[in-house]
Amino acid sequence: MTKDEGGACGCAVHMKGARKAVAVDPQIKTSNLKRLRRIEGQIRGLQRMVDEEHYCADILVQISSVQEALRSVGRELMRNHLQHCAAQAISKGNRQEATAMYEELLDLMYRHAR
Amino acid sequence: MTKDEGGACGCAVHMKGARKAVAVDPQIKTSNLKRLRRIEGQIRGLQRMVDEEHYCADILVQISSVQEALRSVGRELMRNHLQHCAAQAISKGNRQEATAMYEELLDLMYRHAR
Amino acid sequence: MTKDEGGACGCAVHMKGARKAVAVDPQIKTSNLKRLRRIEGQIRGLQRMVDEEHYCADILVQISSVQEALRSVGRELMRNHLQHCAAQAISKGNRQEATAMYEELLDLMYRHAR
Amino acid sequence: MTKDEGGACGCAVHMKGARKAVAVDPQIKTSNLKRLRRIEGQIRGLQRMVDEEHYCADILVQISSVQEALRSVGRELMRNHLQHCAAQAISKGNRQEATAMYEELLDLMYRHAR
Repeated sequence: MTKDEGGACGCAVHMKGARKAVAVDPQIKTSNLKRLRRIEGQIRGLQRMVDEEHYCADILVQISSVQEALRSVGRELMRNHLQHCAAQAISKGNRQEATAMYEELLDLMYRHAR
Repeated sequence: MTKDEGGACGCAVHMKGARKAVAVDPQIKTSNLKRLRRIEGQIRGLQRMVDEEHYCADILVQISSVQEALRSVGRELMRNHLQHCAAQAISKGNRQEATAMYEELLDLMYRHAR
Repeated sequence: MTKDEGGACGCAVHMKGARKAVAVDPQIKTSNLKRLRRIEGQIRGLQRMVDEEHYCADILVQISSVQEALRSVGRELMRNHLQHCAAQAISKGNRQEATAMYEELLDLMYRHAR
Repeated sequence: MTKDEGGACGCAVHMKGARKAVAVDPQIKTSNLKRLRRIEGQIRGLQRMVDEEHYCADILVQISSVQEALRSVGRELMRNHLQHCAAQAISKGNRQEATAMYEELLDLMYRHAR
């Protein structure tokens, strides 16, 4: 295993090609896995609703509920990201690493998290 | 089977408790089922990423991509809803049915479709 | 004055280059003008906050409040649009005019109203 | 003038009741003031459009453009917030101050910045 160039925050390492979080709050991990399994069930429920030709507005409301559930997962991931990865880049990284982290956070907020 | 009171648009009938769309464009149905199966795979991918403690920002970008995919499903459902259910309530329904449909659409747009 | 090509809904006429709504609910118009004047004041308040270098998070919360106020104006405009312009295109227009209206509504919902 | 308890980030001071940012990038300030003056003009344009009963969809598209412009101001404020206020709370503050900043950022992202 070789060291990678580091993530924006310097806290990610390549392992089989995937960047890793150095630290993950076990409580956040457990609750996110639980949420994602529930979301998987909701997606299968949506397939059934579409297949059985349920009333469109009812399906749209259900989609909106899945979107909210995904937002909750995102929020917890962001909490972990700030506490561990961002905090490290900002307090331990050099100026360039800190700036890269600010830009990454701005992108996550304004491009990905609406 | 008894007749129900009708959906907001008068185009939904209760069958085993679920309101149905009177008309569903077969092309929309097929492509939405396909999208939802792909989304189900993406959700399982997210579970794997969380379980393997991938870099938070990478998971957040992937969540954002699932949300966009769900929006596309929603958009197609809304197209079907407008063409069939809303159109019927607006052009064939009485004043009360039309007004109920406008309110339903406003709710879907401003509360559920962001 | 010459007849225009018509809006998507056939309910708009060019007058000095601007498409008009055929019908505007006077109550919606009055309340929207009132809201927009209040929003103008909020924008000037934002200029002051930026100029006096207020705490960034406080300004961000205020921006969010202006955005909600604009959404309320949008919601009322959409109500008027559905009741008058869309209703006319859908119930009185031909197939092509109705389809153009559905596409316009989808665009407003999924591209402009988030 | 008395020292206040500080903002979440410890970088704000009460002056006549308003919390201040300790540091503001002059380029961000100038461009935000310019944007906000342009937005003020757009709001007055919206008042005119509503008053002259322009086509609803045209007004809705214009509202959407103002929303995007406000988002751009928010993005620049958030950049400044991260670089100065958040950075200070995270790297110089104690554990409690850092945690308060993470929660403030999460709130701004998930409640206010959509």
